[in-house]
Amino acid sequence: MRIVTFTHAGRRQVGRLDAGAVTPLAVDAREGAQTLIDLLAAGNHMPAAGAPPLRLADVQLDAPLPRPRRNVFCIGLNYRSHAAELAARGFNGAKTAEDLLPKAVVAFSKVPESVIGPGAAIEMPAASSAIDYEAELAVIIGKAGKRIARAQAMDHVFGYTIVNDVTARDLQKRHQQWLIGKSCDTFCPMGPWIVTRDELDAGRLGVKLWVNDDLRQDGTTADLVFDIPAIIEALSATMTLLPGDVIATGTPAGVGMATDPPRWLRSGDRVRVEIEGIGTLENPVV
Amino acid sequence: MRIVTFTHAGRRQVGRLDAGAVTPLAVDAREGAQTLIDLLAAGNHMPAAGAPPLRLADVQLDAPLPRPRRNVFCIGLNYRSHAAELAARGFNGAKTAEDLLPKAVVAFSKVPESVIGPGAAIEMPAASSAIDYEAELAVIIGKAGKRIARAQAMDHVFGYTIVNDVTARDLQKRHQQWLIGKSCDTFCPMGPWIVTRDELDAGRLGVKLWVNDDLRQDGTTADLVFDIPAIIEALSATMTLLPGDVIATGTPAGVGMATDPPRWLRSGDRVRVEIEGIGTLENPVV
Repeated sequence: MRIVTFTHAGRRQVGRLDAGAVTPLAVDAREGAQTLIDLLAAGNHMPAAGAPPLRLADVQLDAPLPRPRRNVFCIGLNYRSHAAELAARGFNGAKTAEDLLPKAVVAFSKVPESVIGPGAAIEMPAASSAIDYEAELAVIIGKAGKRIARAQAMDHVFGYTIVNDVTARDLQKRHQQWLIGKSCDTFCPMGPWIVTRDELDAGRLGVKLWVNDDLRQDGTTADLVFDIPAIIEALSATMTLLPGDVIATGTPAGVGMATDPPRWLRSGDRVRVEIEGIGTLENPVV
Repeated sequence: MRIVTFTHAGRRQVGRLDAGAVTPLAVDAREGAQTLIDLLAAGNHMPAAGAPPLRLADVQLDAPLPRPRRNVFCIGLNYRSHAAELAARGFNGAKTAEDLLPKAVVAFSKVPESVIGPGAAIEMPAASSAIDYEAELAVIIGKAGKRIARAQAMDHVFGYTIVNDVTARDLQKRHQQWLIGKSCDTFCPMGPWIVTRDELDAGRLGVKLWVNDDLRQDGTTADLVFDIPAIIEALSATMTLLPGDVIATGTPAGVGMATDPPRWLRSGDRVRVEIEGIGTLENPVV
């Protein structure tokens, strides 16, 4: 099943997407992200009474979780190809790819208010001159849990979406910890919808990103250093995961900072992320 | 004014504290942290109708914001004395105190669900064997803002409380970014109340912490590397700050990891933080 959050005739609703048709659901889009996913995970996806299907082309898609319950979890340095390209540029003082390959999950966060929907503008902050993109498969948690073992981890996944983990590289470096460089307003494009777990094997998905017509990232989730069960095991070891939590799982090679000279985003660019089995998330840069 | 969140006769309420008496307020404690602070900042602190004052001793104090709207912002390495003690132990490869003194605000976060109230138990996670304490002055934002200039920063402060930024040092190091080691369940004791900005000059407050009867931290906010206006200026440069945001401003010298051998918290310990002009926050360790 594909779940969309959309605005039609000035009203935000949650719907089910089938073959270009959006069926509004009875769940209230004003619910918080945690309650919303809790309801959907429990099977509350009945159509709203008296609300006929709409054409996808006639609605405005919003981020599937426009305002997550708490900061979006993000995993860093989690593709072998990306660790290698950063090591080649001496990131964090690394000399070899091995130096940068994490021995344990690297987790940081983006504030919930950095989330924007498909088509919404990524705004370049005046405080940065090094804005970069990161195509990422994002996991939506559907069931609370703590100390979740690897073998049970997938039971806690509600579904998947796409996140572009936009990053101000200069701020990321200057402030040491990554929160500030990752949490600028508009820096978390998310969408276009949630694909539920049953529809997707997340172990070998193509992850691509274009800036305008230039293919910059072309990876596969088979290259993950820590796969989804390992990430869930690590985060939940000491912290209760909750329905509605969003975990962006890291980005493959091809980011703008990896080339010499770096290729930062510029006003007027369009960034498009495509993940196999999910869809396409495109945002303009202003 | 001192604002408390408390439970009495099974019901959570917000109140005003005067000389040992708690006057329940008309604002609804079930409001989210953002709405609650927004209401209070706008002057909604009328007593609840028909609710006589209670004795402080007769209520259970909760964290003043039991579930912040988004992750708690925390500032790292923000006391000169603390940077010096960590440099002496070679933290992050530092050789001199100067190496560790940040040139820009170091910001990370703790998940909102790590917050517990006064007297609630800090639970030691099985995954860590190096649990440490950090006494911190916390700022509560009262007015939204972006690109807030230093001169206007204090207009955005609603008040102050105390946070104990409990940290699993082994996880903090192993996972590189600090989110996991800082966000274990129960790792953000907060309280005992909010003191509004007008009652306190935060520039030179004593900050003390005891483990049982042993005074471990004895600092002053005059030692901050980045003072409150500088922190607000840095965070808001690229990100909109919101009413109800909590910013823990860093910890002075004396943490458990700074001695050889380190002095980690143990089951049965009691940790007490005292900040001049605010009060005392005490929590047992189990």
